[in-house]
Amino acid sequence: MKFTCAQSELNDHLAIAAKATSSRPTRPILSYILVVADAATQAVTLTGFDEAIAIATSFTAQVEDSGTICLPAKLWGDIVSRLPKQAVTLAMGGGAMDAFFTVAMTTGKISYDVRGLSPEDYPALPTVEGEPIAIAALSLLQGLKGALPSVSDDESKQVLMGVHLLGGSDAIEFAATDGHRLSVLQSESDTAAESLEVTVPGQALRHLEAMLRTHDAIEPVKVYLDDVQVRFELGARRLIARLLEGQYPNYRKLLPKDFLHQARVDRRVFIVSLERISVLAATKSNIIKIAVASEAIALSVDASEIGSGLEQLPATVQGDAIDIAFNATYLLDGLRAIESAEVELLMNTPVSPAVLRPAQGFAPLGTEPRYLIMPVQIRS
Amino acid sequence: MKFTCAQSELNDHLAIAAKATSSRPTRPILSYILVVADAATQAVTLTGFDEAIAIATSFTAQVEDSGTICLPAKLWGDIVSRLPKQAVTLAMGGGAMDAFFTVAMTTGKISYDVRGLSPEDYPALPTVEGEPIAIAALSLLQGLKGALPSVSDDESKQVLMGVHLLGGSDAIEFAATDGHRLSVLQSESDTAAESLEVTVPGQALRHLEAMLRTHDAIEPVKVYLDDVQVRFELGARRLIARLLEGQYPNYRKLLPKDFLHQARVDRRVFIVSLERISVLAATKSNIIKIAVASEAIALSVDASEIGSGLEQLPATVQGDAIDIAFNATYLLDGLRAIESAEVELLMNTPVSPAVLRPAQGFAPLGTEPRYLIMPVQIRS
Repeated sequence: MKFTCAQSELNDHLAIAAKATSSRPTRPILSYILVVADAATQAVTLTGFDEAIAIATSFTAQVEDSGTICLPAKLWGDIVSRLPKQAVTLAMGGGAMDAFFTVAMTTGKISYDVRGLSPEDYPALPTVEGEPIAIAALSLLQGLKGALPSVSDDESKQVLMGVHLLGGSDAIEFAATDGHRLSVLQSESDTAAESLEVTVPGQALRHLEAMLRTHDAIEPVKVYLDDVQVRFELGARRLIARLLEGQYPNYRKLLPKDFLHQARVDRRVFIVSLERISVLAATKSNIIKIAVASEAIALSVDASEIGSGLEQLPATVQGDAIDIAFNATYLLDGLRAIESAEVELLMNTPVSPAVLRPAQGFAPLGTEPRYLIMPVQIRS
Repeated sequence: MKFTCAQSELNDHLAIAAKATSSRPTRPILSYILVVADAATQAVTLTGFDEAIAIATSFTAQVEDSGTICLPAKLWGDIVSRLPKQAVTLAMGGGAMDAFFTVAMTTGKISYDVRGLSPEDYPALPTVEGEPIAIAALSLLQGLKGALPSVSDDESKQVLMGVHLLGGSDAIEFAATDGHRLSVLQSESDTAAESLEVTVPGQALRHLEAMLRTHDAIEPVKVYLDDVQVRFELGARRLIARLLEGQYPNYRKLLPKDFLHQARVDRRVFIVSLERISVLAATKSNIIKIAVASEAIALSVDASEIGSGLEQLPATVQGDAIDIAFNATYLLDGLRAIESAEVELLMNTPVSPAVLRPAQGFAPLGTEPRYLIMPVQIRS
């Protein structure tokens, strides 16, 4: 194996593949990256695989000799990221049996030997074939950005640790809930997706989100499915993940149809005020009270032993006044996931689910991104 | 107490005073800031004091009513730092006995009440009077920046946890050593300082360094001394610290007069190469080898089980070739503390002290900043 490429290219792709390597591997090789250099296609492919998620990514290089090796993701990545931004040559070690799985990396007067492992020991990647569903990268990114904050991190609720994807004739619905809040939003798909109804682990989708953010190709993302796995293909990058098993909760019945109280506020102002009052809320189980009046909403926290805070925000309000309380963190997560300049907070009673959404002129709930949040019951 | 000031001014001064408050106080009040507002001088003074170090800082404000209170440094600072950049008014609470030591902080439609403590319980600050020594802020900053990296953090070596200041007729010498390396440098003083021979705790001087970095006054810093304390006065900011007791080691005798081997290299290139090869050195007790040849120095690490690295740097060399080894962290600390474009590494044998300094054309050791570093003995 011998190839030359730009340091920046090697560094970027190595960082992507490394996301799917394990820092506490059950077997040492799961913390390694599989490197495959192909002289015929003049391409290098890097693969990371922790037995739950696999990420493979390819880039163009001057490949002199084809070859393959496994290199330690952390150590190799730490060195590559510090190399000067210029061409770097990687060559597999010489004749001695012992040195065979060593790579010599040279650029200018800098040279590093990195010990690797035989690619024969690298686990086989799962394959997922068939007819793909196509979705624009931006649509997929918006779906993930909206849903991921509501994914549960409670390992005892397996199926809630994922995002539920539900396909239709021209759209995909993304949903996630941890029991305290629920994100539901729809993104257009480029092909029909009626067959799609899966729950994909949040961790895999967080990697996918990071890959999409640095993905600038115009071609849509292809989604391949079988009964147990999903494969996302973004140009020369692929992510494969095992699906979560189990019945996803029937979240649609949680979304109220009508609301008695609606308030429209500037999203940025709402976020900044919440972040500030959270300093006090942190001492009170993170609970903030919201008093909705005719032309303003007032956020307040009363932590009598240390102090209290009151933030008044101008608002356009429909319906009567209402006092309600929320977990500040859940409210902030929802506000940060929404992308509009103004948001609407839709409420019924202090003990029934409220909904945050991009401002829709107080129209009934539709297919816009909806972030349902359970109020916190407080004694008055 | 009632005053109005700019949020940015309050925030900056609060952050300075908070450095001298304790996050794990032996008495609760040591985590509070003493606030004194004076209508006569139209100034507000904030003081932090953890019984070892005191920092007081004053700024101009529209003071309507004089008054004083203690406010919790962390909570108060967390709120102030998140307030919008506009005028903010602080007023002590109303008539109720219980609310007396509460401050109401308002700006626009934002209002926070913060519970405080009586200023009567705040410990008295030590006083240090007499004739001050004057030193330009920049000279003091350079002295601290050069010496602080060598201060010991070993609590069993009390006197080594400080910087030794030794005055002369027109200069102050700064020295610090932890037994592995020694920093010695001189800065001009504006007044004679023959009486000065003290060891000031590194922690206090780190705070002073931070204060100097944001200090833009032209007037020199005044240094007041007595047998047990030192007070630094930078305009309206003051830092008072207890001196370290004990005989400071006679470090001057450690500095060699002559050197058999001298190498001049680009400081930036040296730092970048060391940072890169430290990735491997971290697995080998942080030790790197340096081979000085006729026109280059070569940094190398051989961690055979995981890999090896070699970095060749162009150098101007005087004397024969030599192989020597250092702790990479100590070398990096020294290189980062030096401010010149080129540095010289002066050596005698692989087991005797070497010196790093700004390039001096291979002249004998003088009063330039000197960073002595003990080599690490390795088996060849």
